[in-house]
Amino acid sequence: MLHAVIMAGGSGTRFWPASRRDRPKQLLDLISVAPLLRLTYDRLDGLVPPEQVWVITTETTAEACRRILPEVPAGNILAEPVGRNTAACVGLAAHAVGAGDDDAVCIVLPADHLIGDDENFRSAMAAGADLVAREGGLLSFGIQPTRPETGYGYLEVGREHARDGRWTVHQLQAFVEKPDVHRAEGYISSGRFLWNAGIFAWRGRDLLTEMERQLPELSAGLERIGQARSSADADAILAEVYPTLPATSVDVGIMEGARQCWVMPVDFPWSDVGSWPSLADELPTDDRGNAGRGRITALDAADNVLVSTGPVLAVMGVDNLVVVATPDAVLVVPKDQAQRVKDVVDRLHDLGWEDVL
Amino acid sequence: MLHAVIMAGGSGTRFWPASRRDRPKQLLDLISVAPLLRLTYDRLDGLVPPEQVWVITTETTAEACRRILPEVPAGNILAEPVGRNTAACVGLAAHAVGAGDDDAVCIVLPADHLIGDDENFRSAMAAGADLVAREGGLLSFGIQPTRPETGYGYLEVGREHARDGRWTVHQLQAFVEKPDVHRAEGYISSGRFLWNAGIFAWRGRDLLTEMERQLPELSAGLERIGQARSSADADAILAEVYPTLPATSVDVGIMEGARQCWVMPVDFPWSDVGSWPSLADELPTDDRGNAGRGRITALDAADNVLVSTGPVLAVMGVDNLVVVATPDAVLVVPKDQAQRVKDVVDRLHDLGWEDVL
Repeated sequence: MLHAVIMAGGSGTRFWPASRRDRPKQLLDLISVAPLLRLTYDRLDGLVPPEQVWVITTETTAEACRRILPEVPAGNILAEPVGRNTAACVGLAAHAVGAGDDDAVCIVLPADHLIGDDENFRSAMAAGADLVAREGGLLSFGIQPTRPETGYGYLEVGREHARDGRWTVHQLQAFVEKPDVHRAEGYISSGRFLWNAGIFAWRGRDLLTEMERQLPELSAGLERIGQARSSADADAILAEVYPTLPATSVDVGIMEGARQCWVMPVDFPWSDVGSWPSLADELPTDDRGNAGRGRITALDAADNVLVSTGPVLAVMGVDNLVVVATPDAVLVVPKDQAQRVKDVVDRLHDLGWEDVL
Repeated sequence: MLHAVIMAGGSGTRFWPASRRDRPKQLLDLISVAPLLRLTYDRLDGLVPPEQVWVITTETTAEACRRILPEVPAGNILAEPVGRNTAACVGLAAHAVGAGDDDAVCIVLPADHLIGDDENFRSAMAAGADLVAREGGLLSFGIQPTRPETGYGYLEVGREHARDGRWTVHQLQAFVEKPDVHRAEGYISSGRFLWNAGIFAWRGRDLLTEMERQLPELSAGLERIGQARSSADADAILAEVYPTLPATSVDVGIMEGARQCWVMPVDFPWSDVGSWPSLADELPTDDRGNAGRGRITALDAADNVLVSTGPVLAVMGVDNLVVVATPDAVLVVPKDQAQRVKDVVDRLHDLGWEDVL
């Protein structure tokens, strides 16, 4: 059966002051429709039934996730005691899924991305899942790049392996770390590189086999947690073992050394909404390029990102700023420095203003 | 006896979003000590007893003024039904003061200025009051200018008339409207011009005599209000007549055409705090020139004015901005455009966001 594993463990600070410790990005309705987690779930409609949706999140946010996804069985929403990077996360999910379904096929999705054209997305997910159900291997979905972005990793596409309607599957040649702009331009013009969106498909048992081979310590720890799953001390074992697991990413820890990796090029609109400016494309924009939401107004001002979760926000005579207003905290930063919001959060921590973190 | 008339009718919008319709500048504690009105009152300590302090304000704010000045008899706090500029205001006060004191001498003070060196201020007020008590005439206090300010009117100083210790009194040669920068520089270098701070001294009856001569319609209206003062329909007469009074300023309507005008140069530190940037001198400042108050923090940012009345306000990588944060409204504007805050207020009015005005 097809399962969806939604990775919702992020504690991102890049959307402060909208995001807080107990309200990370995936729980925010940044574009004013619904929390990103809910959009991620809704995008699976018709593809994966609720009881085959799994959410891996944190203890702080598990209850909020259950409220946002009331259709999903509460037991499918798993809380990591601590974050141990994505390899541990998908391994924990594979054990949980596999406990009830030996032949489980998983698509693995970050909870906090924006995707346009849900039909296209579902068609791609179904095609990728079919391939790994049929042939095994670990599959990365690669996003057709639209610009020489230096903020993303890339997937190098190898030889075509199969074709299924509009979808093709290729050997995955290599994972590439975030490049400089010169290399990024080369990737785009070559036509052989795709953005690595962190969206995967595999059979649960294939993932666990690779994990056992490449990351035996992680594999053993997860095995121990998995065996205790239905016992009285399941929570205690999880709390004891999980923090000791090696912390590595799926890409580096598993995919790079895996015996069979696939990449499927996809072309649905995608954004990891990694910072306030990246949100601008998703928000209503006035004729001077000010994007925003909430009770905002801009006079003699252009190309700002203005977000309010409540207060009236008025700007005059400023350009290219990000201004975010909440009832108890306000941020002002130039767009081109918005990646540094974490520095602000660190400063507030140093000041002891924990009530707004 | 010496009375103080505090003009507290301003409905200024230049400090939005801290100032609102029902919380104009004079009621704000912009520098975090006490409301400007209270500072104005406290500055009279030892010079004018509470029962000889009069406050002319609006119906919206009279109760707030009484709370801020509990020592002042409630009947000394007069509410104008509508604002009719300063000539009507000081005339209304002169009638009220004169009803109990034929020989009343008034010093007239805006409620919303900042003055340093209260001793110096009181000494100057006492000297000016002595002069008009002795010789009559209408006296303007003129502030020694410290820069070629184009935002103020100027007083041209004439022949010296009297000297009293460190204080001199001169004929007032002329009132000068706000000059351009070239003329302002000439004023400074001539040494003959002072800033017009709107601070006056006169005997109540001398003011009313000039008013009768120059503004007979205003005079007659105020006379009618004055005669009704102790009657049962005092409020009704005030509400009926006051809105019909000619609206003109003391300077233009009375001082410019008066038979005897004096000017006394004074040198206490003074600011009309006419806009957010003018407040910077009064606020704590970090080593990069960021002035502000409240829970504020600035990273890689310089020369900003940052004011919060509650929310945490964090700025990074911006210079020369005014940012004001309140729980329900936020303003961002460059310092050199802060005079235009009224445009923002007009826009919010157009948008119908009356709840934050």
